[in-house]
Amino acid sequence: MKRAACFVLAASALTTAAFADAALPLYIGGRAVPKIVKVESGSWFSPDTEATTYTYQWPGVYFEAAFTGDRVAVKVDDTENNLYVWIDGVHRLTLTRPGKTTVALKDLGAGRHVVRLEKASETQGTTGRFEGFTVPEKADVLPAPTYTRAIEFIGDSYTVGYGNQSRGQTCTTDDVRDTTDTSRAWGPAVAKHFNAAYRINAFSGRGIVRNYNGIAAGDTLPYLYKFALFDHSVAADDVGWTPDVVIVGLGTNDFSTPLNPGEKWATRDALHADYVRTYADFVKSLRAKYPNAHIVMMAPDNNANETANNMKAAAALAQSEGVADLETVIFTGLDWMACHYHPSLKDEDILSKLVIERLNQLPKFAPAVAAQ
Amino acid sequence: MKRAACFVLAASALTTAAFADAALPLYIGGRAVPKIVKVESGSWFSPDTEATTYTYQWPGVYFEAAFTGDRVAVKVDDTENNLYVWIDGVHRLTLTRPGKTTVALKDLGAGRHVVRLEKASETQGTTGRFEGFTVPEKADVLPAPTYTRAIEFIGDSYTVGYGNQSRGQTCTTDDVRDTTDTSRAWGPAVAKHFNAAYRINAFSGRGIVRNYNGIAAGDTLPYLYKFALFDHSVAADDVGWTPDVVIVGLGTNDFSTPLNPGEKWATRDALHADYVRTYADFVKSLRAKYPNAHIVMMAPDNNANETANNMKAAAALAQSEGVADLETVIFTGLDWMACHYHPSLKDEDILSKLVIERLNQLPKFAPAVAAQ
Repeated sequence: MKRAACFVLAASALTTAAFADAALPLYIGGRAVPKIVKVESGSWFSPDTEATTYTYQWPGVYFEAAFTGDRVAVKVDDTENNLYVWIDGVHRLTLTRPGKTTVALKDLGAGRHVVRLEKASETQGTTGRFEGFTVPEKADVLPAPTYTRAIEFIGDSYTVGYGNQSRGQTCTTDDVRDTTDTSRAWGPAVAKHFNAAYRINAFSGRGIVRNYNGIAAGDTLPYLYKFALFDHSVAADDVGWTPDVVIVGLGTNDFSTPLNPGEKWATRDALHADYVRTYADFVKSLRAKYPNAHIVMMAPDNNANETANNMKAAAALAQSEGVADLETVIFTGLDWMACHYHPSLKDEDILSKLVIERLNQLPKFAPAVAAQ
Repeated sequence: MKRAACFVLAASALTTAAFADAALPLYIGGRAVPKIVKVESGSWFSPDTEATTYTYQWPGVYFEAAFTGDRVAVKVDDTENNLYVWIDGVHRLTLTRPGKTTVALKDLGAGRHVVRLEKASETQGTTGRFEGFTVPEKADVLPAPTYTRAIEFIGDSYTVGYGNQSRGQTCTTDDVRDTTDTSRAWGPAVAKHFNAAYRINAFSGRGIVRNYNGIAAGDTLPYLYKFALFDHSVAADDVGWTPDVVIVGLGTNDFSTPLNPGEKWATRDALHADYVRTYADFVKSLRAKYPNAHIVMMAPDNNANETANNMKAAAALAQSEGVADLETVIFTGLDWMACHYHPSLKDEDILSKLVIERLNQLPKFAPAVAAQ
């Protein structure tokens, strides 16, 4: 009987190490909906435990954690996205629409490591789920990374990085899916330059009052912005998120096509007026939400400056109604060589450099400070 | 003392499960150089073991193994390639120039699984190393997958899949690195259609007698073909490899540029004659190596058919000197929209369908047989 008891002990030790790994505390970059789920231990001698999963849909969402030791496991359930796994700032793995998958990185070497899972692709109609990072032993758990700077990006496809890895403008739906890489868009590049946390609240095809070619009337970006999921089922919970800078780029979809019969604006002038008023109100709501944030409004100089001119009018209106610490940026010189005339990787570089130069002017983002 | 012994047993069981995993026997698709290395157990109570690693350089090399149970680990040491990990025919992970990395897939579900590691990118100046698949327990080891059909592809960049994922013709060196995906080239598509094993013995820029623009004189594909590594340090060991079909596509690089001063051919006619004679000799050497293989010679119809016409002359010469079971295929209708006017993914599809139609004519590859 002593021998039998002994083998049970051995099995228990094995199970603890291999299956009941310790979950790492997270830094979450972006909106994700937590849900506590029961994890069945699968054995009579160890109790069931609880774990938190995170459902995500906005682009560019990332999860980070720190640990010691040479291994970490990443657990996802996502049939639609390309997900990147980074270790210590190096992109090591891509999970290509992996489904329900647990992947473990081993032989990482001793010492502290930071693991990061990042949503690279855009999914407008489906969600994915992150089920946590784990390490073999509780002693390997470290506090999650923290940031002293934070930037929020609000926009459309230009902010998502729509098709940005493409080397051509002609793309199928699958091409767009495969070539959109938010991690290589200008926003994350700016944030990484300043070692800043960031969120990408952007949705391709959406505008301030009018979406691309008039689709999905009313479901504009300022409306979607209120939610964590795009079906409006879960309100956004931005508690604990206080960006130093909010950068908004919206208007291309409002103006890129002629008005169709049946849309709510009788004339182009009426569309312009609605855009200016609504955009100013949206900026005022951002100021109310983030009283100390520096706000940047961006627009391209293409399409005879229709977006740029109306964006500047919206900024002037917001300023006249009390919104301070607000600047506008017009960008130029892009080659638009990615899918459907979107910014190419070369353009992402132009945009990130332009924005970095602007943010360098802010005391908290000044080069000497940011290098710390 | 009984209790103490008991805890040693527990630790030993844990170590065996977590660290001394069982290596899986392999099916290796392509040339790889095995090397037996000592694996230190890192503990006083378990002996050091041996493992075989595989150095690879030719494109499209893949390693496959079968196992039962819900987890498998993949061990690589490769700072240059994009490597794909497939489980049961589904591409689940991409290792992006991962360095020395062990990655484990877990929660795969019970039952038999097939794991596959595949080199997607082309590396001409560096090698990578595969260090094996492992499962936690010896009982989970299954025999490696086997194939009843086998195809060898010999060629240049068109066979490598050079830049094929690009949606444009303008590409930097990094673009080519990032967009070359041999797994999506026409050769692997043809082989997978027939559930055939395959090898890709191809090298971008090489020709029959002359490489692209005359570079690397003498180090042509028929010469490189003799080696497992491109520095000529290790002879190819093709023991056990008996392809049913050998498909050769070479000549684009011989003819795509004007002759430069100092090259060994005084005239274009001399180049043509050397190509025809050397290509016929190469085909004769393939016939000697693989007496029962069906041989296909392929060429595009571009560049005023200079490649196609000379390829046909080489085929006629080989046939006149006794090479039977040989056919030629001229392909047309490509858009050449990938990097530097290479076949696009759309073109890969045209090419694979064309070759599948031809191979359907072979008794062993006839649709009714191939479906088995």
